[in-house]
Amino acid sequence: MSGELFGPIFVPKRFREAVSGRAWLQAMLDAEAALARAGARAGLVGEEEAEAIAACCRAELYDPRVIGERAPAAGNPVPALVKELTARVSGVSEEAARHVHRGATSQDITDTAAMLISREVLGLILSELDALCAACARLAAEHRGTLMPARTLLQQALPTTFGLKAAGWLVAALEARGRLREAREGGLAAQLGGAAGTLASLGEKGPEVLRVYSRELGLPEPVLPWHTARFRIAELGGALALAAGTLHKIALDVILMAQTEVGEVAEPAGEGRGGSSTLPHKRNPILSVTAAANARRVQDLARTLYGALVQEHERAAGAWHAEWETLSDALSLTGGAAAAVREVVEGLQVHPERMRGNLGITEGLILAENVTTLAADRLGRLEAHELVEAACRRVAEGGGTLREELLAEPRLRGALGEEEIDAALDPAHYLGASGRFVDRALEKYRREVQ
Amino acid sequence: MSGELFGPIFVPKRFREAVSGRAWLQAMLDAEAALARAGARAGLVGEEEAEAIAACCRAELYDPRVIGERAPAAGNPVPALVKELTARVSGVSEEAARHVHRGATSQDITDTAAMLISREVLGLILSELDALCAACARLAAEHRGTLMPARTLLQQALPTTFGLKAAGWLVAALEARGRLREAREGGLAAQLGGAAGTLASLGEKGPEVLRVYSRELGLPEPVLPWHTARFRIAELGGALALAAGTLHKIALDVILMAQTEVGEVAEPAGEGRGGSSTLPHKRNPILSVTAAANARRVQDLARTLYGALVQEHERAAGAWHAEWETLSDALSLTGGAAAAVREVVEGLQVHPERMRGNLGITEGLILAENVTTLAADRLGRLEAHELVEAACRRVAEGGGTLREELLAEPRLRGALGEEEIDAALDPAHYLGASGRFVDRALEKYRREVQ
Amino acid sequence: MSGELFGPIFVPKRFREAVSGRAWLQAMLDAEAALARAGARAGLVGEEEAEAIAACCRAELYDPRVIGERAPAAGNPVPALVKELTARVSGVSEEAARHVHRGATSQDITDTAAMLISREVLGLILSELDALCAACARLAAEHRGTLMPARTLLQQALPTTFGLKAAGWLVAALEARGRLREAREGGLAAQLGGAAGTLASLGEKGPEVLRVYSRELGLPEPVLPWHTARFRIAELGGALALAAGTLHKIALDVILMAQTEVGEVAEPAGEGRGGSSTLPHKRNPILSVTAAANARRVQDLARTLYGALVQEHERAAGAWHAEWETLSDALSLTGGAAAAVREVVEGLQVHPERMRGNLGITEGLILAENVTTLAADRLGRLEAHELVEAACRRVAEGGGTLREELLAEPRLRGALGEEEIDAALDPAHYLGASGRFVDRALEKYRREVQ
Amino acid sequence: MSGELFGPIFVPKRFREAVSGRAWLQAMLDAEAALARAGARAGLVGEEEAEAIAACCRAELYDPRVIGERAPAAGNPVPALVKELTARVSGVSEEAARHVHRGATSQDITDTAAMLISREVLGLILSELDALCAACARLAAEHRGTLMPARTLLQQALPTTFGLKAAGWLVAALEARGRLREAREGGLAAQLGGAAGTLASLGEKGPEVLRVYSRELGLPEPVLPWHTARFRIAELGGALALAAGTLHKIALDVILMAQTEVGEVAEPAGEGRGGSSTLPHKRNPILSVTAAANARRVQDLARTLYGALVQEHERAAGAWHAEWETLSDALSLTGGAAAAVREVVEGLQVHPERMRGNLGITEGLILAENVTTLAADRLGRLEAHELVEAACRRVAEGGGTLREELLAEPRLRGALGEEEIDAALDPAHYLGASGRFVDRALEKYRREVQ
Repeated sequence: MSGELFGPIFVPKRFREAVSGRAWLQAMLDAEAALARAGARAGLVGEEEAEAIAACCRAELYDPRVIGERAPAAGNPVPALVKELTARVSGVSEEAARHVHRGATSQDITDTAAMLISREVLGLILSELDALCAACARLAAEHRGTLMPARTLLQQALPTTFGLKAAGWLVAALEARGRLREAREGGLAAQLGGAAGTLASLGEKGPEVLRVYSRELGLPEPVLPWHTARFRIAELGGALALAAGTLHKIALDVILMAQTEVGEVAEPAGEGRGGSSTLPHKRNPILSVTAAANARRVQDLARTLYGALVQEHERAAGAWHAEWETLSDALSLTGGAAAAVREVVEGLQVHPERMRGNLGITEGLILAENVTTLAADRLGRLEAHELVEAACRRVAEGGGTLREELLAEPRLRGALGEEEIDAALDPAHYLGASGRFVDRALEKYRREVQ
Repeated sequence: MSGELFGPIFVPKRFREAVSGRAWLQAMLDAEAALARAGARAGLVGEEEAEAIAACCRAELYDPRVIGERAPAAGNPVPALVKELTARVSGVSEEAARHVHRGATSQDITDTAAMLISREVLGLILSELDALCAACARLAAEHRGTLMPARTLLQQALPTTFGLKAAGWLVAALEARGRLREAREGGLAAQLGGAAGTLASLGEKGPEVLRVYSRELGLPEPVLPWHTARFRIAELGGALALAAGTLHKIALDVILMAQTEVGEVAEPAGEGRGGSSTLPHKRNPILSVTAAANARRVQDLARTLYGALVQEHERAAGAWHAEWETLSDALSLTGGAAAAVREVVEGLQVHPERMRGNLGITEGLILAENVTTLAADRLGRLEAHELVEAACRRVAEGGGTLREELLAEPRLRGALGEEEIDAALDPAHYLGASGRFVDRALEKYRREVQ
Repeated sequence: MSGELFGPIFVPKRFREAVSGRAWLQAMLDAEAALARAGARAGLVGEEEAEAIAACCRAELYDPRVIGERAPAAGNPVPALVKELTARVSGVSEEAARHVHRGATSQDITDTAAMLISREVLGLILSELDALCAACARLAAEHRGTLMPARTLLQQALPTTFGLKAAGWLVAALEARGRLREAREGGLAAQLGGAAGTLASLGEKGPEVLRVYSRELGLPEPVLPWHTARFRIAELGGALALAAGTLHKIALDVILMAQTEVGEVAEPAGEGRGGSSTLPHKRNPILSVTAAANARRVQDLARTLYGALVQEHERAAGAWHAEWETLSDALSLTGGAAAAVREVVEGLQVHPERMRGNLGITEGLILAENVTTLAADRLGRLEAHELVEAACRRVAEGGGTLREELLAEPRLRGALGEEEIDAALDPAHYLGASGRFVDRALEKYRREVQ
Repeated sequence: MSGELFGPIFVPKRFREAVSGRAWLQAMLDAEAALARAGARAGLVGEEEAEAIAACCRAELYDPRVIGERAPAAGNPVPALVKELTARVSGVSEEAARHVHRGATSQDITDTAAMLISREVLGLILSELDALCAACARLAAEHRGTLMPARTLLQQALPTTFGLKAAGWLVAALEARGRLREAREGGLAAQLGGAAGTLASLGEKGPEVLRVYSRELGLPEPVLPWHTARFRIAELGGALALAAGTLHKIALDVILMAQTEVGEVAEPAGEGRGGSSTLPHKRNPILSVTAAANARRVQDLARTLYGALVQEHERAAGAWHAEWETLSDALSLTGGAAAAVREVVEGLQVHPERMRGNLGITEGLILAENVTTLAADRLGRLEAHELVEAACRRVAEGGGTLREELLAEPRLRGALGEEEIDAALDPAHYLGASGRFVDRALEKYRREVQ
């Protein structure tokens, strides 16, 4: 309700429109049109009447606000919409008007609309994720050898590459993308069960109407009406939560790398974005921040959808009603997060020199593991460990660099020599399988996307 | 975003308006006006200039949609609003324009607005709860002696009274009301800390400006700016979740009692409400259902607010931004639930004859405990227990009523006699402290409300 | 921690053991053994040494309590375990001891153990779901024609069959089963990345070690180490939440049908189960109740796992640590819910006569839709609607049955005749596609399971 | 169930014991003893018998595992415990045995035990919070003038003091403490309602027994039995979530300040804690990390408790059962977080020189706001803004320091002079009310605690 003021910060227009009252109305009307045509195919309605109904199923003929204001009596907007639709069809054909909404219950129309809305928004989200994956893949390839510190519990641990970090984003984004594609392609279904899920008022024709109705809408036909079997909605929520969480992880890495003291990346500049009028030095990672905000909310919206798995008998007393706006919000907020993170990664400003510089902060300690391993081959594990540890301690207590301390230790210098010590302290020599891992991620990308 | 279509089902207009974009704008402008006046009191701004600013702080001068569309660059609506406000003030006084927003950061204005919005909506919710408590109290008093089955794990357990059930609702509603009052009276606070929480740009005058600013707004002055100390918001979320859950409990009891097979209550009839065009016999408890839907959502919105306790350093990278719409929704949905449940309880149709009838369903078994207790005094606990249990078993296996089976058992008939057996089987004789408990609830009500 | 007292109520022993400290220890040791062997295959460790290590990897050699008490210093149990393991291996071979845990970081072992634990428990849950599906299928087939009221918003709506209700459970359970199978077969992966996800200390041999390690464990090899790419854990949480919610829906239907006033089903009796010493007539649906309790908790545990998608850089500062016990609990509580609901459905006592009786409660109103439809063909929609509605109103106001009122209305009687009216009021004649739907559900079952 | 292995990492022994099966047993037995004595006071039980019962109410006489294994039949442990207790009392006095558990239902004993457990654990948590507040207060006072960067959206914003940051922690911790105290002192209550909340089996004596029972336990007497009015439990959950979130905020600040690149604080060293065998330079903030892990879990556990507000009729079919272990876990995990953060703050290693050094990272840009403000008085707002902004841009593009660029700009140098520019660039001169705010926080501390 405060959406007009805050909405644009979090959700781009195309996503807001795709879940708007008008979009819902159109989706409901699409369901009514498909129902009329399916009735015609089954011989319950004349072809002409069906087309007369379908011709009135255009959202621009109705006002979502008016329908909304009349919705409370029934507890959902469909009866008010059906009344308006029927009135309009009556103007064309009284006979056709008799067949409006025939065989359906309000939940059939609302659930089917939810599926159509979801298909549309999932498509939009997937476009963002496609572009995000492409951008991650580009970064991974480009920075396959760009050295930076790996950080565990936010402490520098070992050298890694920015390419591997981007490869990690890529693989996670591909997984989220895969799950959303599954949800879009296999997880949706038409809904048509009539007042109690038996299609009683369609007599023998129920299954045929259901089949044609589904086909008309391009939605999979369900085995059963799913009025209170909500796995579709819950799984959709789960897929959105997975995507949102994945986007949040990328956003968080960006925010952390963009810290003033770290300075390894910056968000792309954009018309005044992220600036601060009073603090001219700031470049706020505002896209990542809003993506993070969205992602937080999506997790709890998904929780509401999972909670709505528990529905009484043949129509729930509340859990179903809780789904509509929750699903709208979860879809559009995930879309907003995807769009923001995609924009961030596409235009990310990467500062390899700061990454390299940060690798030096520990005065070489970050490579102590490597030195120990090498020394152990010459001196035995125990002595190597003790000597290197002692050197590390001296560095930490404010001595010089690890290089200096190692060279100052005769046993180590004797065992390894200056050249080998220098090699051991070169982060580029202690990257393990990072390059190979980047390649594997890119192979997965090519396999799944290109 | 789908709110225009679905919103009215769940949230009455007064609540939707109280959290609308326009309401938020006005609250932000109230904060700006108070800031200008506080600056004047502290000698930083001329009195005339302050009043020139305040005169431009009327929401109808601005379009929330326009501000919203310009908000993404900064990640919040305040800079866009300040720009428009400044432009408008400039038209009156260039000097005044220089002092717009002086000393404040965007979060100061947004958080203060959130407090003003919360105060307003909490007031509306409390009105609903006052009326709900009154209605519960009336039902408790009126039905102090109306017999009905108590149900544990949804099985009939013992007799109780509908008055005691209503008294239970009353006490829970009073607790929720108390917590919301605390939140409204003690839990809110003005926000003013400047860019980093030190009020640096106000020099020495910071604390004085903060004091007057708070007073102007009628909000408590905080000990510190609370940019990342969000206990106020989380506790507000908790209070709303408590209220929503309490309302949901009442709604659930109504839904369960209104079941076709139980039929003990019905929701008040209202212009077509709860009816079904195709199923003329239905009277859907639609107000309770929508209240339940709202309450489900509020629980997860509150979870988002609790999650937002964890904010980085002096301004959060996402958690703060996640609060705005979440709080708006939590406030208005709780309001909607309160209004719906209040209407349900005020107009509840109670059917004492069905309650009494349902008490007879177990053929007297529901009073077996009472019989055993009485018989134990005569026959000893063991024998009494065995004999009554055997009688119960015969009833359950399809014999007659418990009365018949008890009378058919010579030892029991001998020990208790027909009259005493009849008394033991009269539910009105086995109500324990239920009347006294109703009185205690009403005393609490009178103490706290009247 | 209070598990010894409460655990058995909610989780059968086999599930408790499968997530016990001992089971975790064994899974961690399995990972260490696989690591040693993979090192041997890659030529980093001698074959003999590897087998010496593997021989010490038996949980019964260690005490989970002791390891647990030593775990806080590192913040996870692996270093303490590695220390004990190394000591034990030392006793056999000093050389072998040098290679214990080589190349791995604590998270590699913990995450791999989590996967092994999950594989085991998912297997147990799937056994329960297989049996549950079989039981649902049996009920669906057996009660394909068993009439009962369908209920929407807990109001009787139309006739349906108990077979169709069971078919709805079946389809939902099959979906949940499918998702858990996917999680078990495709969603798990070995974890091995070393201190920072680069396998640096294994030099060139990293990828080979990873490959053999995964094969040894029978776990899929991941594209990348997934230390902070937690989609696997989140999706597992989602699959468990889906299963738990589905089980909760079935449990709720049982609880509602078992209400004293409804009496359509009862849980299977079992050694004192569900009885009440003081209330001899009660048969509490205690299995369904505990399943519902578990399911509630699993939803929020899954929320914690989704929240843990957001992990910093290369190892998270808290989100990872929050997963361990949460995952254990989510797995075992879902297992408990599955076992309980399986037992309920397998032994469900169905009372078709009560179902049929409940269909009569509305005095025929539940079939008004059918009468209207038939009459409309003779009298036109408008008149038919008006006449039937008037008859319904008279019934609701306490007149006789709908049959009586319909026969008393000359226009209707004339149009339809007594015989047709009786047919219209026979619920068996208004079941629509319910039988066909049952068949479709059973076809899906046979396709997927048998 | 995996608690023996993982538990000690997250929860100190005293908290684990306080929620153990044994502790629950003792609390249940305390309730039974109080019930017997209250019965005696009301004349329902002989004094001697009551004392005979009370004498058997010692947990060491029973095995929580045995009780637990027998609990599933009833769905809660009380009947199994009552059976054992009765058997034991029988050994002393058959007459006394007849009065064991008289008037109570299982929920009375379980809920009362939950209150006793909560009182105990809340006491332990409050001790931690007292110590935490003291440590925060000490840091705030000691570092009232210790300069450091304030960070908004993780970007350096303006100077602040570490004292003010600690003061922020202090105020938040005081609020959390206040709420927990309220919960402990005003939020608990005895539970006694009998099978259906009417105390029917106690006849006239119900209210008297309830009064004495409450007094014996030192728990407030509730207005009504609260079997399905769960605001106490939900609010307790809310208070724990508030505390956990507050502790998480402090932990997060510590983790962020302890980053290798920031280095402003380090956790207290402790026997091997936070070290890494392979990475000798690391000092992991492991206490903060485990506190964060706990806090994440508590938020979702609290969500389960809020969800349990919605309970059917007079005893819930699942929601109640979901509370027991959830509450135990929420209490002990909050305790663990409190103990960890208390230890962190008490022993925090603060590095003022790194804080000061970090203030210099932006080459003076962090003070641009101050320069602009001062220059505006001389040059007019517009020109001042333009000139300073241009200077900032040059710095950001890699020029020199802001000082150099300002001095190189003749208009600015002319207007302010070198001395004034130096003063403007001194962070100690731009702290606003930070000192005053620290004092206010300390005043609140003294007012509330000392």
